Formats: sequence, structure tokens, C-alpha cells
Amino acid sequence: MTGVVDPRLSINQATIKHADLATALRATAEAGVRCIGLWREPVHEVGLQTAASMLAGSGLRFTTYCRGGFFTVPGGPQRRAAIDDNRRAIEETATLAAAAAPGSTAILVLVAGGLPEASRDLIGARERVREALEELAPDAAASGVTLAIEPLHPMYASDRCVVSTLGQALDLAAGFDPSVVGVTVDTFHIWWDPDVLSSIARAGREGRIATYQVCDWKTPLAADVLLSRHYPGDGIIDFASLTAAVEATGYDRDIEVEIFNESIWASDPDEVVRHVVARFSSTVSPHLSQSLPSNARSRP
Amino acid sequence: MTGVVDPRLSINQATIKHADLATALRATAEAGVRCIGLWREPVHEVGLQTAASMLAGSGLRFTTYCRGGFFTVPGGPQRRAAIDDNRRAIEETATLAAAAAPGSTAILVLVAGGLPEASRDLIGARERVREALEELAPDAAASGVTLAIEPLHPMYASDRCVVSTLGQALDLAAGFDPSVVGVTVDTFHIWWDPDVLSSIARAGREGRIATYQVCDWKTPLAADVLLSRHYPGDGIIDFASLTAAVEATGYDRDIEVEIFNESIWASDPDEVVRHVVARFSSTVSPHLSQSLPSNARSRP
Repeated sequence: MTGVVDPRLSINQATIKHADLATALRATAEAGVRCIGLWREPVHEVGLQTAASMLAGSGLRFTTYCRGGFFTVPGGPQRRAAIDDNRRAIEETATLAAAAAPGSTAILVLVAGGLPEASRDLIGARERVREALEELAPDAAASGVTLAIEPLHPMYASDRCVVSTLGQALDLAAGFDPSVVGVTVDTFHIWWDPDVLSSIARAGREGRIATYQVCDWKTPLAADVLLSRHYPGDGIIDFASLTAAVEATGYDRDIEVEIFNESIWASDPDEVVRHVVARFSSTVSPHLSQSLPSNARSRP
Repeated sequence: MTGVVDPRLSINQATIKHADLATALRATAEAGVRCIGLWREPVHEVGLQTAASMLAGSGLRFTTYCRGGFFTVPGGPQRRAAIDDNRRAIEETATLAAAAAPGSTAILVLVAGGLPEASRDLIGARERVREALEELAPDAAASGVTLAIEPLHPMYASDRCVVSTLGQALDLAAGFDPSVVGVTVDTFHIWWDPDVLSSIARAGREGRIATYQVCDWKTPLAADVLLSRHYPGDGIIDFASLTAAVEATGYDRDIEVEIFNESIWASDPDEVVRHVVARFSSTVSPHLSQSLPSNARSRP
């Protein structure tokens, strides 16, 4: 099995959401996959230090931590709580990355959050995101963590993420050191963007691609549009052009498959991981120029 | 009733989809609304000449005809059929506009269409749109019809409309005379766009705003995302900033309310039109600087 697994493939834990941390680590390692992206909830379930030990024991590289953000609320206790929670997420990211196998990366994915309750002030909400980044950047820098702003598909702009395009994420990141604030390039969220290829090139030029994530888009959308992500190859996303654009920037690190899908979640996690391995090989690997991630060649 | 109806409000017939043409015209006129946008299917139901007579008899201005487009398929009989159908839609637009009350406008709204069956070539599909515009522009010019490219929300990019932003629509229109190829500015589709205000300003500078349409965005989205449009004021769209941006360009013609919503469609059309009148007054009218549309002041 291991022979056919792309060494740059990382399983984002959300793809096997109902597996606990132990199961997720085991299923990923047993399928021959070299790395994993973790979510906070299952890490908290066992406790951070235990999670770090389990991750170390798995031998897997750690690729991203999901997720921080949700800081569009204006001032007050709710905003302080959101910022404090992001500070904890930064520390957790650093702890997990330090414990995991050589070549791990300390990347915290940020989903900005939607419009505050009863607000129509989209421009203001976006400004709150910039302010939050300003508050958090020193903490991230001190911990050696990269904050990866994730633009989400515009269908989530009101209730989940006011950052809707890669270009907008890059504009938000512009004032910060690229090692501290980068972006998440996720095919599902940006495939439709008329500027997607030039924005990916710009992200590369500006040194901002913290992580590249893949999954597919298919219609009709699921009734809950949040759960409308699919295995690469099941939909209409052109992984050839998007992956080639990311590769052309020199990005040569791990690539996560992150899928939210009720039917995939209901499947056996071992089967899901094996299916992801096969689909990654057929849809993404042919467009990669580097067979081994740079972060696995030498410890950073 | 008439005293409180904004003279720039136009009812797009889709808002009362289950009303036939006679009912739609009557309900609109009886509510004191001065104009209407029509759809092809109910016009075809009675026949074009009859529809033109009925429209003339209603005394209403005609604001847009919905819709042409769906021309992303590559060459072959399917493409010829699509282009021919658009030629007929252009003629129908001109006929209806000529029959309707003074101040009517001959505007054909274009929804580009999605990816062809089994295709992942989004860039190619967008090129097919440009080619279709090149084929149709001479016909539109000869008939005095403006083709109004409508960018649709990116959640429709794969199955309905590969034109996803106002900026992209303007790029497509750029090679054509603005009186022949313009754009549709619909709040539902573009409110999320980080560039929306600058794109509206650009559309104005380039003389491309053929029509301004309003309805609201609310989550959770309807299970069929096509039917997720709401009365202005029921959701999170900031009609103040968008309407002010459109007004600032000098746009001073009619403004359509176009809503696709199962529950609104199931309501009595007279009640729906009255509700639209009230909501337009409270959400859009306060941001208008012109109380009477320019196209109603003198016959073009």
C-alpha cells in the first residue's frame, strides 16, 4: 500500500470527523499516509499534552491545526474571549508541531467569522478581521506559528467567513511578515474565481501560501451547504490547472484533503483514508513536480 | 396607495412566478407600480403579439426581459440552437419595449450558463460566452436592444452561470458598445464581493449599468439555493451602500425587485406586490436621489 501513497498527501482530520484522535492517527498511518492536519475539538477531547504524545507516537508529520478565527464581533467581552481563544490555539499549534515528526509545520488555519448578529456592516466586519490579525501576529511570531487566513466560498460570507477571495486574503495579509500571516489555498472555496490563477501566482510571489487543500465541488449542493465537499474527482474542479498554479509558485510542502460530507463521515474511516489516497494519486499527484515535500527532506 | 409607491420600482415577474401574464400586469398596475420586467415563458404562453398588446394596455413601462444566455456549450447544433434562441429573445425584447408605455427600456438580461456536461474547463466556458456576445451584438444593435450580462453568485458558477463577478462581466463587455452590451447589477449576486463598490463605480464610468435589481440574502440558504432570495429587509444585504453606489454613477432609471422564493410564490400575487412596494419604500427609496426615473421624464 505504502508504495502508492503520495508522500505529500496529508489527511485533514475533518475528512474522518467521527473518528477520535487515536483512530484518526492510526487510520492515517496504517494507510501509508505520512502526515495529518488536526482539529481542536478532538485534541481537546484527550487534552493537549496527551494529543501531542499521541501525535509524536504516530510518526506522522503535522501539517495544519484547524482552526482559529471567528473574530468579527466588535469590542466587548465576546471579542476578548475570541482573541484569547485564538491565543490558546496558537500555543496549541506550536506544541503539536514541536511534538510531531520532523518536517511538521506550525500552521493555524483561520476562518474569519461571519457578520455579527443583526449586522449588515460587511466592511466593518472585515476591518475587525484586520484588527484581530494585528493583535494576534506578535503571539504567532513569538510561537513560530503561521496564521493561514482561509478565504471561504462567497456562499458563506454572511454566516461564516467575511473573507471571500484569495485576493482579499492577500490584501489582509499584506501588512504582516509572510512567515507570520499567510493564506490557505483551498480548491473548493476559490475554483470559481475569475482571478484564481493570478491570485495563486501573487500568493506565491508574496510568500504567503501556508497550505494547499483540495476537495471537489459538485451540484446540486447539499441541503446544508457546509457539507457539500466531495472526494477529488467526483465534481467539476480542475485540479490540473489549480495544482499546477500552486506548484509553479514553488510550493513544495504537504497538501491536505479536507472534506465535509455526511455520507463520507458515515463511512468507515479506514476506507475513507484509502479512497482519499487513491483519488489524490489520480487527480493531484500527476500535477506535482516535487515527489517529496521539502519539509520532509530536512528539519526546518 | 399610489401616493406611496416609488415611481422607480419595477416588479420583476419572477417575483410572482405563478401568476400568468394578465394577473401579473393587473396586480402590478393595481398596486400603483409603474413598470414591470417580464419573463419569456409567460409571454410565450399567450404569444408575443398578444403579450405586447396586453403590456401596452396595462400602461406599465417595460424594464427588462428575462432572459437570454445559456450559451456556454461549444460548437454544434446545441450551440446553434442556443444562439438562434437568443436572436429570437432579442427580437421579442424589442417588440415588447416598442409596445409598452413611454420610458420603457429594451434590455435583455443574459445568464451565461454553467459548465457544459462533464466539462471542467471553466476558462473555456467563459470564452464561449465572449464568442456568443460577438455573434449576438450586431443583432442587438440592429434591434436597439441592450444585452445585460448578469454575474450570478459564485455558488451558481458550475451549473448556471460562469460569470461570477461584476468585474468579470465588465471585462466581458469591454469590447462592445455600452448601448449594446451592459451589465445587470443584482444585489443578491454581488453583495459579498470585496470589490463590489469599486466595480459598481467602474460599471457607471463605463456606461454599462443596464439594470439594477434588488432582493435580500439570508442564511441558512434554502435547500434549493436557487430559491434563496428574499424581500429586501429580510436579510443582511446593506441596500444603503449598494444603492448609493449605483446612484452615484448617475443611474436614474427603474429598479427591479426580483425574488425566487417558494413561500413568496405560494402567496397571493396582490399581497406580494404590496409587500414589495412597502419594502422598497423602506429599504431602497431612502437612498435614491432621483424621485422620478429619467426614462419616464422623456421618451428616449
